[in-house]
Amino acid sequence: MVKAYGLYGPTKQLEPMEIKRRQVGPHDILIDIKYAGICHSDIHTARGEWGGTYYPIVVGHEIAGIVSQVGSAVTKHKVGDAVGVGCLVDSCKECEYCTDGYEQFCTKGAVGTYDSTGYDGAQTMGGYSQQIVVRDEFALKIPEGIDLAHAAPLLCAGITTYSPLKRYGAGPGKKVAVIGLGGLGHMAVKIAAALGAEVSVISRTNAKAEAAKALGASYHYASASEGEAGLAKKLGPSFDIIINTVSAKIDLDSYLKLLRPFGTMVSVGLPPDAMKIHAENIITGNRQYAGSAIGGIEQTQEMLNFCAEHGLGAEIEVIEAGQINEAWEKVIAGDVRFRFVIDTSTLA
Amino acid sequence: MVKAYGLYGPTKQLEPMEIKRRQVGPHDILIDIKYAGICHSDIHTARGEWGGTYYPIVVGHEIAGIVSQVGSAVTKHKVGDAVGVGCLVDSCKECEYCTDGYEQFCTKGAVGTYDSTGYDGAQTMGGYSQQIVVRDEFALKIPEGIDLAHAAPLLCAGITTYSPLKRYGAGPGKKVAVIGLGGLGHMAVKIAAALGAEVSVISRTNAKAEAAKALGASYHYASASEGEAGLAKKLGPSFDIIINTVSAKIDLDSYLKLLRPFGTMVSVGLPPDAMKIHAENIITGNRQYAGSAIGGIEQTQEMLNFCAEHGLGAEIEVIEAGQINEAWEKVIAGDVRFRFVIDTSTLA
Repeated sequence: MVKAYGLYGPTKQLEPMEIKRRQVGPHDILIDIKYAGICHSDIHTARGEWGGTYYPIVVGHEIAGIVSQVGSAVTKHKVGDAVGVGCLVDSCKECEYCTDGYEQFCTKGAVGTYDSTGYDGAQTMGGYSQQIVVRDEFALKIPEGIDLAHAAPLLCAGITTYSPLKRYGAGPGKKVAVIGLGGLGHMAVKIAAALGAEVSVISRTNAKAEAAKALGASYHYASASEGEAGLAKKLGPSFDIIINTVSAKIDLDSYLKLLRPFGTMVSVGLPPDAMKIHAENIITGNRQYAGSAIGGIEQTQEMLNFCAEHGLGAEIEVIEAGQINEAWEKVIAGDVRFRFVIDTSTLA
Repeated sequence: MVKAYGLYGPTKQLEPMEIKRRQVGPHDILIDIKYAGICHSDIHTARGEWGGTYYPIVVGHEIAGIVSQVGSAVTKHKVGDAVGVGCLVDSCKECEYCTDGYEQFCTKGAVGTYDSTGYDGAQTMGGYSQQIVVRDEFALKIPEGIDLAHAAPLLCAGITTYSPLKRYGAGPGKKVAVIGLGGLGHMAVKIAAALGAEVSVISRTNAKAEAAKALGASYHYASASEGEAGLAKKLGPSFDIIINTVSAKIDLDSYLKLLRPFGTMVSVGLPPDAMKIHAENIITGNRQYAGSAIGGIEQTQEMLNFCAEHGLGAEIEVIEAGQINEAWEKVIAGDVRFRFVIDTSTLA
């Protein structure tokens, strides 16, 4: 049995529990988890806010650790390798999306790292635990130069922001705005700046203005002072790409007005409520309002390599298992700079 | 003076009027207009429904005619050439957008064919008239093989649908749905089919199902029978590109669910009211909701050449000047297959 921290119901606190991992099959690897990042999705899922959660649940899809056992057919990893696991642990690997590197859109249905039913019929359990067994192809290599604690959040926050920044061409000569400076937002700033784009941060207040610039942003705007509509009026069409990391309802129409012709606003945070949109604000300037969800295995490895080359890791606060409940409340309150990471040795 | 048909106020009927065209300058050409298409935008603008209309107004931005005089510095056209004029008659031709071929986004402000203020300070007047003077670069060559009457609607309805179909990669192996089978919709079907895509039409009823197939669609779906949500449930994620030509509020969320991963829904019709959108429906499948407005001069010429090569023209009903008021009512009622075109010789 493996020690973990999980919940027995949507209104429960996290508590220590023991879970069983499957036997290491020919194509599996066993990972001794060293660090697990805390993603807001963990909280939404664990508390049943997105519906359909299966209990008991152990969450966590920002996993970094060391390979401690490999199956007989494994070629990608070996014992002692530093590896990461993100939001996906299996897919068919045969459909058009899997073969194109987009396992997240697998037509058979990709298997999520937690709260998902594996192809063996068992409920998946995530990274707030000591060990995990995954199909070797779904573990990523953590390159030298990023330590495991700073690497863990890249497996979700890193790829979720890297993927749309690449798709929409962030780079030299492009202006990128990032709305919200939390776990996702701070990685969006770091990655966009490393890609060579000019980065602006838009947050509600000026509380994180200094931090934004330290992360690589050239400009910081507070939306609360003049409102989103006021900001749109003041700045006009200014950005080629806007990455919206806020998972609450926003004034979409005003933000769309901040896009230059052919610009794209990408939502990576998932507000549950409907937003209003006037078609005029996308027809003017041939703009796009897009969504982006995590990324495939190949691109996740590309992102890790990119981060290692550019010396990027997440800004983290390392916590012990006993602090997870408190950390979740802080995440909800936005009181974290910028990602809590659980030292899983404290689960013992 | 040039005979035209126009309005003296938003609630007026169209009536005969005489307008003055500017002298043919060194870079201008004079066009004897032969045909002018009736676009729904003409009606919205003339009736002040989009705000800011200046009266009296002569509308019409689907113009086909013959060059009858050229300025001393004109090199692009010569007397006797078959030419067209679309939604644009001038721009700075120097900014980054103009030099990239996107005059519609000119930073100085492109000059519209009607209800716009020209760089000379005069109000522009559109194609429901006998003649027009335009800067030579803004007149398009109508290739042999498309007669003028069938070519006229291409200058707006053609380019407005061609541009997003090209941007989002309509072609062999791609599935395109067209919502609404009016002036824009019927051109979207013809062009998408000619590009090699598999085309479906979604309209409210089955009244135009046969017509859709005659235009090149493989499938036709009526949304009224099961509702948009029912249609989304029945078909699932089916299309790579959806061109929405309807300028009324639609159930955006349900249509977005019809998109395959990485698919794009493009609005080219402009509903005045806000629509609801759940971010979930774009984040799932990395979808895009985009807008597209007309197209630049270079791409408009490319579209005309494409249509000539593929033997495409608009499906039209030619009318006389005295029938324009009645035709407008029919356009509003959706009672046209598929574009009214004014024989401008009847303005005399």
